Amino acid sequence: MKIYEFKGFPNPARVRIALAEKGLLDKVEFVQVNVPGGEHKKPAFLKKNPSGAVPVLETEEGQHISESTAIIEYIDHLQGAPALTGKTAYDRAQIAMVQRKVEAGFLDAVADYFHHATDGLGPDIEKYQNSDWGKRRREVAIATLHWMDEQLKDHDFITGENFSSADITAQAGFLFAGFINLDIPESCPNVRSYADRLMARKSIQQAA
Amino acid sequence: MKIYEFKGFPNPARVRIALAEKGLLDKVEFVQVNVPGGEHKKPAFLKKNPSGAVPVLETEEGQHISESTAIIEYIDHLQGAPALTGKTAYDRAQIAMVQRKVEAGFLDAVADYFHHATDGLGPDIEKYQNSDWGKRRREVAIATLHWMDEQLKDHDFITGENFSSADITAQAGFLFAGFINLDIPESCPNVRSYADRLMARKSIQQAA
Repeated sequence: MKIYEFKGFPNPARVRIALAEKGLLDKVEFVQVNVPGGEHKKPAFLKKNPSGAVPVLETEEGQHISESTAIIEYIDHLQGAPALTGKTAYDRAQIAMVQRKVEAGFLDAVADYFHHATDGLGPDIEKYQNSDWGKRRREVAIATLHWMDEQLKDHDFITGENFSSADITAQAGFLFAGFINLDIPESCPNVRSYADRLMARKSIQQAA
Repeated sequence: MKIYEFKGFPNPARVRIALAEKGLLDKVEFVQVNVPGGEHKKPAFLKKNPSGAVPVLETEEGQHISESTAIIEYIDHLQGAPALTGKTAYDRAQIAMVQRKVEAGFLDAVADYFHHATDGLGPDIEKYQNSDWGKRRREVAIATLHWMDEQLKDHDFITGENFSSADITAQAGFLFAGFINLDIPESCPNVRSYADRLMARKSIQQAA
């Protein structure tokens, strides 16, 4: 099993954390893709993922899986019971729901701010930028952090008492926000302690 | 089990199709939310879904699940083997991947075009519009249709030989595109016959 990635970037970190949680980090060959150099937008890589994004998983049979949520779904079903995406109908649905809200409202919103309202990865890669949209997405990210703060009022993790793929998405959001100096507001104390708690987690340290 | 929805809208249609595929359409109480009147953005509804969007599923225990993919995950695991989201690690991942690409690149892109580059649901509801972004997303939708055309070259359905949640997402995209007269380009003949094939499917007719 191979993972095409750019180590340290937020979405590749999601897959590394999932692998670490499942004890599979050393079962994978990591292949670095030169994202700052635009390699992920060139024909050879677009054959692996037409969306032009890392990470991409290559199975033993040579099949390619892209989209971080799909790769984590695969990893979570490889061995043992699904630990990250839930077992019962309700748990699976609740994790999928929260994961999606954190992804669309926080991780992707921070990414959109970066790609649209800052220099992003530079003019050769950022062929279309919409600064007003990027700034709007920053507001969405801040609003989502306040929603997350509510969710974390009585729980250690974003879906409740257990670590899940939704926490992995949140961690990727914190990583991305850290790159661009988007601080967690003081008005979100539960999110602040949650981010510290995630950072201290073994799988997240192993994946770093 | 209740579903809060606005009948005929694309995302509620996704859940109805999933229910029809699983033979559960008559096991659900549907509650109409006045989306054109902005009811989905008011406090009573925001308690059910802070994202302010239909559909929302309410379980027998009164728990709320929003986000169409999460609701379909729930429905698919309620009875019988998962038929829409895949059984094996690879099938689950491949369906999740294609579903996400069709959602982000087609359904959501068409929705963004509608909400940003047309009048959308009107000035009372569309508090922030970014026309340039909306037009850009229309281009993304067209590009995704061309990618889908390639996928459908040798297959009846978007992930291969079997109908899945990714086809449900595509059908919602076709519904939305139909509302706003965004035609499937002639350069996408496989998508055109696929859309006809979906429209003739029993579950999709039952859900309409």
